[in-house]
Amino acid sequence: MEKITSTSNNKIKEIVKIRDDKKFQSEKKAFFIEGLHMVEEAIKRNIVFEIFTKENMLERIENVNEIRTTLISDSVAEKISSTKTNQGIFAICELIENEIDYSENILLLDQIQDPGNMGTLIRSAACFNFQTVIASSNSVSFYNPKVLRSTQGNLFSVNLVNDDLIKTINNLKQKNFLIIGTVLNNDSKPFKKTEFNQNQKYALIIGNEAKGINHDLYSLIDININIEMSNEVESLNAAIAGSIIMYNIKK
Amino acid sequence: MEKITSTSNNKIKEIVKIRDDKKFQSEKKAFFIEGLHMVEEAIKRNIVFEIFTKENMLERIENVNEIRTTLISDSVAEKISSTKTNQGIFAICELIENEIDYSENILLLDQIQDPGNMGTLIRSAACFNFQTVIASSNSVSFYNPKVLRSTQGNLFSVNLVNDDLIKTINNLKQKNFLIIGTVLNNDSKPFKKTEFNQNQKYALIIGNEAKGINHDLYSLIDININIEMSNEVESLNAAIAGSIIMYNIKK
Repeated sequence: MEKITSTSNNKIKEIVKIRDDKKFQSEKKAFFIEGLHMVEEAIKRNIVFEIFTKENMLERIENVNEIRTTLISDSVAEKISSTKTNQGIFAICELIENEIDYSENILLLDQIQDPGNMGTLIRSAACFNFQTVIASSNSVSFYNPKVLRSTQGNLFSVNLVNDDLIKTINNLKQKNFLIIGTVLNNDSKPFKKTEFNQNQKYALIIGNEAKGINHDLYSLIDININIEMSNEVESLNAAIAGSIIMYNIKK
Repeated sequence: MEKITSTSNNKIKEIVKIRDDKKFQSEKKAFFIEGLHMVEEAIKRNIVFEIFTKENMLERIENVNEIRTTLISDSVAEKISSTKTNQGIFAICELIENEIDYSENILLLDQIQDPGNMGTLIRSAACFNFQTVIASSNSVSFYNPKVLRSTQGNLFSVNLVNDDLIKTINNLKQKNFLIIGTVLNNDSKPFKKTEFNQNQKYALIIGNEAKGINHDLYSLIDININIEMSNEVESLNAAIAGSIIMYNIKK
């Protein structure tokens, strides 16, 4: 079994680039994960290209006979981990282009920047049966290490797609989806007073943390709602707003 | 005006300790804030002990005639900031013991560890009129820099209290509050089917991210609810769960 002990090894440099660089992820069709739980989930789904592990973690992983495994030193583990402390086990996985599941509600993310918000929204989408999450290409990567941590392992239970949102929304409208937005204006309806048909499919747009939903999408919104709150304060966190809506659409 | 240029200056060391050390915050009855918006909000509320600012930010702040202001160098600003980039303006503020507002619903935090969750819960509490947030003493500090960032300036619109939760809950029960919990067991009621009386005051307990609500509090819960979700996934993020409940209690 190969062992890498130098942090300046070319393979290690490539791992760090896959970890941090969204473009490079698409180019290589690969993403980086860390921690025993994540690696086990990825092995189950048959998407692991290669495992990188400290020697003491080797016996902890199962069903890896067929998977290329490379030993790494403590310093290499520190180098490739995105956290201060690490379990010493990592993998490079295949980034599979997911399909849109048109049989369930869909979450659309318009330029979400904060990885914690992105991860939490994926986690909530999985909880509330929004089986597909489609993010604009200027959103943070689904495979950013902080996004992965915030999903708490729910990454693999939803379909993750990057696409242009105008094109996507027009496509969804042709498939009879209704588009829900949260643009702050006089036309918005109080969410608690809005009725949702349980036989209708909906796609919910959540906009950028600071700027909200892109103006280009305004005219495509079928139902513009606002989440009722006390007056004094400005706005809810984007992941909170999205999750409240996803939860309450179902009766 | 005094100017500090050395990162090993004793005052700077003390600022860093106030920033990071919850015990030291209580001892000194002080907390650390950063950024123009936060400092301005603190000035309005008359709680600023001392401002630390880079020279170029001096003209940006108003109403500081009475407040002691110290100039700092770039390197000192970097040292005391909790973020990679900083605006160059900071303050040490008075940590005032807030009172419980018994006229509104109350949020109880049992050993919340993640500063992002704590900050987001405070922000949502402010949005949904939970005017008091009471955290167990083993929760992360309200004044942790990441908590402050996640509140997005809503820190000052709610009453923040640290106290023993058993004592607190018994006190709230005497004042006719009903206690809501989210313990996963067979007795829990689906949240969407639970009626809340709009004339009743409620206190909602949100438990630790990994362990949930402390066992010692179970017997004190009056209404144990669960947030309905698809089966495959384990759990919602604590801040999401808390916010969904706070939003939906009001009609």
